[in-house]
Amino acid sequence: MNVGVPKIRIALDAMGSDLSPGPEVGGAVLALKENPCQIILAGDEARLKTELSKYKGDFSDIKIQHASEVIEMNDSPATSVRRKKDSSMSVAVNLLKKGEADCFISAGNTGAAVCATTLNLGLIPGIERPGIATILPTLKGSCLLIDVGANIDPKPIHLFQYGFMGVAYSKYILGKQNPVVGLLNIGEEETKGTDFIKETCQLLKNSGLNFSGNVEGRGIFVGDTDVIVCDGFLGNVTLKVTESVAYTFAEFLRRNIKKRFMAKVGALFLRSAFQGLKKQIDYAEYGGAPLLGVNGVCVICHGSSSSGAIKNAIRFAVESVRQNLTFHIQEELIKLGH
Amino acid sequence: MNVGVPKIRIALDAMGSDLSPGPEVGGAVLALKENPCQIILAGDEARLKTELSKYKGDFSDIKIQHASEVIEMNDSPATSVRRKKDSSMSVAVNLLKKGEADCFISAGNTGAAVCATTLNLGLIPGIERPGIATILPTLKGSCLLIDVGANIDPKPIHLFQYGFMGVAYSKYILGKQNPVVGLLNIGEEETKGTDFIKETCQLLKNSGLNFSGNVEGRGIFVGDTDVIVCDGFLGNVTLKVTESVAYTFAEFLRRNIKKRFMAKVGALFLRSAFQGLKKQIDYAEYGGAPLLGVNGVCVICHGSSSSGAIKNAIRFAVESVRQNLTFHIQEELIKLGH
Repeated sequence: MNVGVPKIRIALDAMGSDLSPGPEVGGAVLALKENPCQIILAGDEARLKTELSKYKGDFSDIKIQHASEVIEMNDSPATSVRRKKDSSMSVAVNLLKKGEADCFISAGNTGAAVCATTLNLGLIPGIERPGIATILPTLKGSCLLIDVGANIDPKPIHLFQYGFMGVAYSKYILGKQNPVVGLLNIGEEETKGTDFIKETCQLLKNSGLNFSGNVEGRGIFVGDTDVIVCDGFLGNVTLKVTESVAYTFAEFLRRNIKKRFMAKVGALFLRSAFQGLKKQIDYAEYGGAPLLGVNGVCVICHGSSSSGAIKNAIRFAVESVRQNLTFHIQEELIKLGH
Repeated sequence: MNVGVPKIRIALDAMGSDLSPGPEVGGAVLALKENPCQIILAGDEARLKTELSKYKGDFSDIKIQHASEVIEMNDSPATSVRRKKDSSMSVAVNLLKKGEADCFISAGNTGAAVCATTLNLGLIPGIERPGIATILPTLKGSCLLIDVGANIDPKPIHLFQYGFMGVAYSKYILGKQNPVVGLLNIGEEETKGTDFIKETCQLLKNSGLNFSGNVEGRGIFVGDTDVIVCDGFLGNVTLKVTESVAYTFAEFLRRNIKKRFMAKVGALFLRSAFQGLKKQIDYAEYGGAPLLGVNGVCVICHGSSSSGAIKNAIRFAVESVRQNLTFHIQEELIKLGH
């Protein structure tokens, strides 16, 4: 082991997902096989120990930090963060705040995660609001959509800042050079959209970013745009519609195959093609959504995350710490004079 | 022929679609084979005659109304409607206004169609803004999403009125009893969403409609809600994302099949299943989007409409006239005391 390179320390809210702590503990075990890192599981110590005992191996890089409370999916974000001081989420965020961890991951209540991280870690200088980014598959590589729900009633300046944050993520984590930025709108022309959109469009045009203009809903998946900014309300609906249409399409196909004997035979031959497709559109491949703008690396996962999704989230979080993402977001803003 | 039943007369903007007038003329020819009706094609007489001459049969029920101008897709809606008085769209709308036609169909500039019909036909009493409705396939039948782009910056009262219009369409055209109405939001809880959404939710709760509450983006395709209302900006992006994800999914599947020999063999067996799927998700099956709220039956088609899509739009328009849709929208409002 190279003693010169310290292991990256992950604070993982282990009680967040719908089936917690199974996926979190399983994800931590899987992650250690791929990456040398240290994982601190925050949550009920007894339950976490029981869960961990199901696996065999050397888990000296997994630590448990007891937390007696859990923020539920239906809890009010602000209230629960304020009242449940000993929740697994707050305990995990605090590890980052105290410098005992390098990043934070949770598959729990998204609003509470945004609230807990913003309150405890603060925002990156120059950023006024955090945004949740999500990676969507397109016909030509991936596209980063930001915001998908952190800020449902933003000002144009917030979307402008999302552009910079998305560019930093695309460059340093997704390895894209000079990422193209677009604004989600109902048409490509500058005259299209609400006053809010028109004002945002002007800000982005004069930002110094590689801004290609407005992108329609159908344009997201064409893949010509690397970063698409929108308000968190629109982004949230867009993300959920995307997941749901893909699922519905697959279900329609399954039903159409099921009622035809010849098609059932054909489907056997197609098994590997279907698996390839699943891998291509499965959100779990990307593991989680980076919460950009807070002063620290934070990744938010789907409530229904599997251990594979948690493992991938850990991989992206480790990469974000390694690449010093938070620094680069600030750098992008400063470089273009903002 | 039953002389007691007059034929329904369709004013069809024949120069609207991307490939006009081919799809319009072809659609008219196909429609006549299915429905006894009269179709008035508005557009360049010489071109329409040439196009029609490609078909063989008795076309005494197709009339041509010459129009010297065309509103282009990039024209400003309000300006083009005001200036191009002899456009195919304006001429077709005027046929309805003068009582020489019973309904209007166009695959042209959507904004111009909304503008031309609203200005010339006026609105149904009790309705303040028109809304474009679209039919989406779901896991359990269809769902009507309204508005998908007529009104991108609405007030809560407009969405409230969309609820009534959607219910009338669902009942009388789609044959649903007691349709369930939902509001598109980022979560199901009443506390979720912007102030605009919360206010709209309260209006709908007290509307007397069969309102089930908020529906998430993923909820659209579950099929538990018959009518989902939203602002035209969100609806437009939702519709385009839906079309695009379905297309992208199909393209991913095609690519995955193409690179595997066994899968190519399997795909041959699956041909009829794929065709069944295409039929299920193809917007052209529904033909067009009803523009609800204007005082007359109006259907807006996709610019890329095929003759099959135009034919289906004619079928829905004829059914809307036959069922007296405009009257029933007003009736729904009055029945519940609004």
